Amino acid sequence: MSNLIHRNSDGVFIIAATPFDESGAIDFDSADKMVDFYLETGVSGLTILGIMGEAPKMAGDEAESFARHVIKRVNGRVPVVVGVSAAGLDNMARLSAASMDAGAGGVMVAPQPGMITEAKLKSYMAQVCEAVGETPICFQDYPQTTGVQVSVETIIGLTVDHPQIVMLKHEDWPGLTKLSRVRAETDTGDVPRMSILTGNSALFLAQEMQRGADGAMTGFAYPEMLVQVVARHQAGDVDGAEDLFDAYLPMVRYEQQLGLGLAIRKEVLRRRGVIASSKVRAPGPAMNARDMEELTRLMSRLDKRLKELS
Amino acid sequence: MSNLIHRNSDGVFIIAATPFDESGAIDFDSADKMVDFYLETGVSGLTILGIMGEAPKMAGDEAESFARHVIKRVNGRVPVVVGVSAAGLDNMARLSAASMDAGAGGVMVAPQPGMITEAKLKSYMAQVCEAVGETPICFQDYPQTTGVQVSVETIIGLTVDHPQIVMLKHEDWPGLTKLSRVRAETDTGDVPRMSILTGNSALFLAQEMQRGADGAMTGFAYPEMLVQVVARHQAGDVDGAEDLFDAYLPMVRYEQQLGLGLAIRKEVLRRRGVIASSKVRAPGPAMNARDMEELTRLMSRLDKRLKELS
Amino acid sequence: MSNLIHRNSDGVFIIAATPFDESGAIDFDSADKMVDFYLETGVSGLTILGIMGEAPKMAGDEAESFARHVIKRVNGRVPVVVGVSAAGLDNMARLSAASMDAGAGGVMVAPQPGMITEAKLKSYMAQVCEAVGETPICFQDYPQTTGVQVSVETIIGLTVDHPQIVMLKHEDWPGLTKLSRVRAETDTGDVPRMSILTGNSALFLAQEMQRGADGAMTGFAYPEMLVQVVARHQAGDVDGAEDLFDAYLPMVRYEQQLGLGLAIRKEVLRRRGVIASSKVRAPGPAMNARDMEELTRLMSRLDKRLKELS
Amino acid sequence: MSNLIHRNSDGVFIIAATPFDESGAIDFDSADKMVDFYLETGVSGLTILGIMGEAPKMAGDEAESFARHVIKRVNGRVPVVVGVSAAGLDNMARLSAASMDAGAGGVMVAPQPGMITEAKLKSYMAQVCEAVGETPICFQDYPQTTGVQVSVETIIGLTVDHPQIVMLKHEDWPGLTKLSRVRAETDTGDVPRMSILTGNSALFLAQEMQRGADGAMTGFAYPEMLVQVVARHQAGDVDGAEDLFDAYLPMVRYEQQLGLGLAIRKEVLRRRGVIASSKVRAPGPAMNARDMEELTRLMSRLDKRLKELS
Repeated sequence: MSNLIHRNSDGVFIIAATPFDESGAIDFDSADKMVDFYLETGVSGLTILGIMGEAPKMAGDEAESFARHVIKRVNGRVPVVVGVSAAGLDNMARLSAASMDAGAGGVMVAPQPGMITEAKLKSYMAQVCEAVGETPICFQDYPQTTGVQVSVETIIGLTVDHPQIVMLKHEDWPGLTKLSRVRAETDTGDVPRMSILTGNSALFLAQEMQRGADGAMTGFAYPEMLVQVVARHQAGDVDGAEDLFDAYLPMVRYEQQLGLGLAIRKEVLRRRGVIASSKVRAPGPAMNARDMEELTRLMSRLDKRLKELS
Repeated sequence: MSNLIHRNSDGVFIIAATPFDESGAIDFDSADKMVDFYLETGVSGLTILGIMGEAPKMAGDEAESFARHVIKRVNGRVPVVVGVSAAGLDNMARLSAASMDAGAGGVMVAPQPGMITEAKLKSYMAQVCEAVGETPICFQDYPQTTGVQVSVETIIGLTVDHPQIVMLKHEDWPGLTKLSRVRAETDTGDVPRMSILTGNSALFLAQEMQRGADGAMTGFAYPEMLVQVVARHQAGDVDGAEDLFDAYLPMVRYEQQLGLGLAIRKEVLRRRGVIASSKVRAPGPAMNARDMEELTRLMSRLDKRLKELS
Repeated sequence: MSNLIHRNSDGVFIIAATPFDESGAIDFDSADKMVDFYLETGVSGLTILGIMGEAPKMAGDEAESFARHVIKRVNGRVPVVVGVSAAGLDNMARLSAASMDAGAGGVMVAPQPGMITEAKLKSYMAQVCEAVGETPICFQDYPQTTGVQVSVETIIGLTVDHPQIVMLKHEDWPGLTKLSRVRAETDTGDVPRMSILTGNSALFLAQEMQRGADGAMTGFAYPEMLVQVVARHQAGDVDGAEDLFDAYLPMVRYEQQLGLGLAIRKEVLRRRGVIASSKVRAPGPAMNARDMEELTRLMSRLDKRLKELS
Repeated sequence: MSNLIHRNSDGVFIIAATPFDESGAIDFDSADKMVDFYLETGVSGLTILGIMGEAPKMAGDEAESFARHVIKRVNGRVPVVVGVSAAGLDNMARLSAASMDAGAGGVMVAPQPGMITEAKLKSYMAQVCEAVGETPICFQDYPQTTGVQVSVETIIGLTVDHPQIVMLKHEDWPGLTKLSRVRAETDTGDVPRMSILTGNSALFLAQEMQRGADGAMTGFAYPEMLVQVVARHQAGDVDGAEDLFDAYLPMVRYEQQLGLGLAIRKEVLRRRGVIASSKVRAPGPAMNARDMEELTRLMSRLDKRLKELS
């Protein structure tokens, strides 16, 4: 059975951190524990080396070896999507090929800054598709970071023109209407279905599921919440899904802080015993003592609230 | 007794909408009802003609007449802060003078785009202070909209150099550490105290109060929550404040959508009977039918949650 | 005979400064002298209240009275285009109506920041066309300032959908291929001709004429050069046009400095006896003593070079 | 004798292209010819792997091998500066160490996007200095590309705090006053001298030399002009320097087109027999047939003008 991503992929593709030890080297042991942890929570896939995954701070050979290691550990149980966004197509093609050879399920591509008309973006994505060969692509629509605004019309054009663009990582902001439109205007007439997984730190996950998302692709450090919210929703328990989501919302909101969120997530994963160190490569955000106390308070409030709910 | 803003101002300064009728003209009757509503919730002040208050879409004489009208209706019960940010200092000085003549409590100024070194910003704020005379100023630190990044050092320099800059509308993002630092590094040595009111749609209000904010200056359409959270916090009930805040968080998060948030707030105020129309001047955001349903659901979930809590 | 702008408008539409006296008030006497000066150099039109014309720093009634004054002085000899870009459509409609009533030849509109997909831009321009009625529109494509990237396809869509959009102020950068494409892909099939006047401080005027521009719309303080270059080009003297242009290029390059260019242009106009003061409204750029010396040197080198050429 | 850059470095440090063959691989033969060509024109140094040198599109090991190759070919005749700007400090440190081991004269660093207060920038540059060890640094002030605005005060603070920051690549825009201020406010009191080389495609080279620049660091494809202008200026022939510069200005202006300029420079170098192919790695700018004709015309006009001058 193939573990490639496809137009009906759903569930939670967790955005995985890259664990480093205190010296800044990749911590492969923690990577193994992290993979096991994610799989135990019930995720449907992993996405590694994303924009938030410190990929731009890794050397090319480091990225490849991390990808191979994770893919091997996952061992085909779920698809692994590899972020390959890069300034040059050669580097993108190299990482994509290495990842797919190792058994990846697809690659994720965000447009480079500067692809700022739909004509330029379409031309760029055609080059990307050629560069990565037949590899299935998750298109990351993340204008807050890339500066590239993409209309619904363009998203549809991309998935029609390039059958390998099968998935949308939706994180335009605010973007609820955009999600509704992509859902309504695909899988109809000549336009194929598209898997829609939502990002933006899951701040609107309940609403996004109600509007037709297939799941989430984000890095919330309590993946079990994402998995349960998506599962309850798919089971028809819309209110139950939103109740659970709202209980976690104070923490979702806290992790969603741009930049700092990465440090928070790694610290939560460390506290939960998933990774050995919350080290972020320089230059990078760091939590200070006050932030640490605040996180302790928020984690403890979350525990209390979950007990109330159960 | 003076109703000017000062270095110890606290509580909730609600960011007021500008109500329009369906034709787009200022709806002064709704303005009166809105003022009464805000005062009944217990706010400590009103801020009108802010960046979100559609001021840039009003003619200069409209803005002046709206300011005069609101100030008259408030009638000295709380201070009214008038947003006077403008591309030119002449226009700023004119609106400031007209507002202060009418009895305003101060003006709010955000730096113009382009004041993008601290040297330029300091020079600009010196010009602003001269242009508005002795008027107390609330400095709005809102880089997401202005593009002007302001360090803690610069904020302190501004309030030291210009005694009239007495208040900070804190809405850098992420900005919790910045708030902590401004609190710690003012009211000490030669640096005077500064009133810190937080913006950013109150997404972190509980955390911000815990870090020493004096209150909030934002436009959440349930001002009673803001008032109670600040009051509970000031009364020492830190957990109770955060519990209440978290109950409203799904709605806070929903209103916080950039651009669309204005339409949502006006619609909530309309549904609550505060203003007659949710009209936003063109070009502006609009809620569609799906958004309307979603809002209905969220409002109803909020009611349910509040009942659980009480 | 009508003096409205149209799809075959050509020549030089000079971007006019707004002269202020030392106190910052509009200097109507200088405005008269400036109009006379421009007309004597042979310009085909005037454009007032552009982005560089300090319009955002003027009150609404000031802008209207300046527009009426200039239009009256021009007295129908050439079309006057009035910049009406504004954050709100109400303000835009008001200035447009007042200007057209006074005898303007059309209005110029740049998209508001935020209209950053072609779908949003098209919707915005449809609203603009409705707001200004039948008025002929010059669409200003100036992404460096507006942040709005516009593709050739969108420009063509706009002029096809809205017959009143008859002129393009071309100042995308770098934009030579864009100009070539708009020229090649209009006036063909169902797409009507479009007048193309180039901006960007005329830094590429010779090349742009060679690629099919109809003329220039910029504020170079030696309009006689613009007029002669366009005239020579239209007379078939391509090399002579470029020789003359190159002689002025050091000064064109000097005036093209973003922001400061406005102060330089006003100072050159003052030195040439056209306006009484080089005052720029605050906050605004100012030349220091070193800049003044440098300008003196450049003006003197220009004189010398022109003598060599003649 | 050391060939490290220092606080009195002057002359022309040419920004070198990275020659590729038609397949996109590094063309080391062309690199050799290019090095020889640059040295024959009399440059005082070479700068490789700059922002415009396609470094972000090269793999880490490619960049290292290119640096080693060029440094070996130069063989100590002039200093070679290596651009090491990178998202992560680890990658920066690695390329810096490899280059210095091979005999480089220093490294060039531009701040990463996001270092957008002076406090953040200072902290970042302290990390950079630690990461690259004792290596002399050329600080690249290029806000148009990095988005990081740097005040004169900050530049001075950096060179005072970090003795290894010995050189400024000046390319803020407009930036003439900034250059004057850095020149006046260094080499005085406790502030050491700083070498100032100007970038920005040399569009203002004559003016910048007159304001005290030590030379140029840019990639104009006729380096002999840069060398002669700087030499004439240093010999006291200010007018002669500017006359020569102005003759080349139409071409300087043409090459200065953002993005496309790289393709133009490579094509000029190819036409001049310096490199075998004008290949730019994807995604990248490309000249079309019309651009090619235009370049031919401009090159031929330049030849004619140079004959007139001689």
